[in-house]
Amino acid sequence: MTNLPDDARSALMLLSELVEPGDAELDDLLDETGPIEAVKRLWEGDVPERLRRITSAAVSCTPDPAYRAAQIRAATAACGARVLTPDDPDWPERLRDLLLVCDADEPHVRPPRCLWVRGPHDLAEVCERSVAIVGARAATEYGQHLADDLAAELADAGWTIVSGGAFGIDRAAHLGAMARGGTTVAVLASGVDSPYPKGNVSMFDLIAERGLLLSEWPPGSSAMKHRFLTRNRVIAALTAGTVVIEAALRSGARNTARHAAELGRVLMFTPGPVTSTMSTGVHRLAREPWEARLVTRAEEVIEDLTGIGGPLASEPPPQQRPIDRLTEIEARLVESLPRGYVVETARLAAVAGLPAEVAAETLERLQRMRWVDRVDDRWRLARVPQT
Amino acid sequence: MTNLPDDARSALMLLSELVEPGDAELDDLLDETGPIEAVKRLWEGDVPERLRRITSAAVSCTPDPAYRAAQIRAATAACGARVLTPDDPDWPERLRDLLLVCDADEPHVRPPRCLWVRGPHDLAEVCERSVAIVGARAATEYGQHLADDLAAELADAGWTIVSGGAFGIDRAAHLGAMARGGTTVAVLASGVDSPYPKGNVSMFDLIAERGLLLSEWPPGSSAMKHRFLTRNRVIAALTAGTVVIEAALRSGARNTARHAAELGRVLMFTPGPVTSTMSTGVHRLAREPWEARLVTRAEEVIEDLTGIGGPLASEPPPQQRPIDRLTEIEARLVESLPRGYVVETARLAAVAGLPAEVAAETLERLQRMRWVDRVDDRWRLARVPQT
Repeated sequence: MTNLPDDARSALMLLSELVEPGDAELDDLLDETGPIEAVKRLWEGDVPERLRRITSAAVSCTPDPAYRAAQIRAATAACGARVLTPDDPDWPERLRDLLLVCDADEPHVRPPRCLWVRGPHDLAEVCERSVAIVGARAATEYGQHLADDLAAELADAGWTIVSGGAFGIDRAAHLGAMARGGTTVAVLASGVDSPYPKGNVSMFDLIAERGLLLSEWPPGSSAMKHRFLTRNRVIAALTAGTVVIEAALRSGARNTARHAAELGRVLMFTPGPVTSTMSTGVHRLAREPWEARLVTRAEEVIEDLTGIGGPLASEPPPQQRPIDRLTEIEARLVESLPRGYVVETARLAAVAGLPAEVAAETLERLQRMRWVDRVDDRWRLARVPQT
Repeated sequence: MTNLPDDARSALMLLSELVEPGDAELDDLLDETGPIEAVKRLWEGDVPERLRRITSAAVSCTPDPAYRAAQIRAATAACGARVLTPDDPDWPERLRDLLLVCDADEPHVRPPRCLWVRGPHDLAEVCERSVAIVGARAATEYGQHLADDLAAELADAGWTIVSGGAFGIDRAAHLGAMARGGTTVAVLASGVDSPYPKGNVSMFDLIAERGLLLSEWPPGSSAMKHRFLTRNRVIAALTAGTVVIEAALRSGARNTARHAAELGRVLMFTPGPVTSTMSTGVHRLAREPWEARLVTRAEEVIEDLTGIGGPLASEPPPQQRPIDRLTEIEARLVESLPRGYVVETARLAAVAGLPAEVAAETLERLQRMRWVDRVDDRWRLARVPQT
């Protein structure tokens, strides 16, 4: 007789170790039987053939599932984490949208079953007004500067910055948000006790203190390539939109972008030099049928996230030139007068395409405004340029 | 009795000097009376009040219109130019599209009445497969490099490059096209005998020899600010599409872009660093409701110009890594095996989420392919990395 976990949450924690997230057959089994019975059936081999095969190795390594579940619970407590399941009040509603897009072709795009959370915030609350900033690990200085800046300004405006904790763009985004006292969430492909990569350990410590570390895998789980891809759907689903800053053509960031687009989230990207391979992937986004929006400033990101009725990005301040203060007729006369020439009124009127009287009258006004000088009955540009 | 020009063409040439292009009242008068009678009425003051006022100064400076027309004809011949009017067979059909977009608010967006052409080509023929490349005069090295490159590759593909002859982007585009033996057209805001700016004189000489210089104004006319704006509609209308490379927020290139969009031409832009003020204007294009397309390579420009059914831009070559040659299951096992560890088959199968038998079989295959080494009954990554 197998020793089963007592409660549903412990059973889900155990299952998170056993079967990768997004497994449709396990989800069906959970819907049918609930988590405790699902564990029982797995250990008895009383599950569909495929599910039996992919779990057989782990089941045979784990003779006492209740004990293993208790170990996971202990490890969770030891690193100061807690576990959320879809029934908890701080489970983010947005994650359920994944149910709308997953299909037979993409079984892995299913909602998470269980999330480990480490940090002082309510996950649902901080994600309500959140945006993902993702991009290349091998980012350029330019890209990191942009990510830092954008995250800082979005944090200032009250937006939570969600990213993946990687080197490069992710790191710059997390740090940019925290530098302004903002909230940031790192969605990991490893356990929340040992975030990957180790090189970002001080950053992860800061995030655990001021933001949130998030994972679908139990403490002790290590990051693996397919887990990064699985994780990306959570980044896309948790947030109102995703900004991609620098990405190679084949990259996790582009994968996150695709999830965001498919989920109906706002997909944005920052452009870069076309000569930079780190921008190839983002520029490609603009040519895909995903309606990715080009953004250059936090104001534009907010405009796109909040849509019609939201705050509109103001035009960047124009460079006002002295001639812009003139009326059209005044400007036309000034521009028709070649520097260094002295021209009579009738000729100038002809060149500017103006009636002679209008030209004469306007030139006198321009003289008072010190744009032109009168020389006998002719005109030249004033020597002192207007400022 | 006023001395009138003999023929319609001479009358149109004279009118080009007298009234700026795009004047709706003059166009109406021409439609009604033809060019010779229009000259007669202007000299007699028998025209609508506004038209009379804007021509009065020039008319009073020009007592003999026939003589003035002969002077313009002589100046045209002297610089090796010829004059085209809408009835000529090499008048580009595309220019008539301007009639569709001009309205009371924008009287200046009307088709040209007369074009001076200098160079060895048939204008209609070279414009059939043409694209405009426009942008900032104060372009960066990056922008100029891009313009040169794009123009060269488009010229290679048989596209005529149309631009405005200015410093910066325009210059780079003209030279890029000619460097590959391509055809280029400079649409000027001054006469074709004295293209502006003088600093580009050697380039203009080359264009007159190998491409085409084009102007709506008679020889001797000088470039004025409003003429650049008027000229821009011709660049947009002549071509199948416009690529904007670097532009400040207020710029002629953005004006050309707007014309292109309104004419239903394909509007494209190349992105740049968001930190560069020279890219502000192009990035803004992407956020305006004009469906501007982001392009990074000539192939993409051609894809956008030729539309569905045209040659599709190929994916840029992906960076192929050794692991990309593996099947998904093989890759999963390799990625689940941490470097430096020796792991037993069952454990590895569990981590990779694979049935034990499949893992064992695949690992043996990976061993033959030299991805993994067997150590007793356990596995480690091969020491020699795959290339």
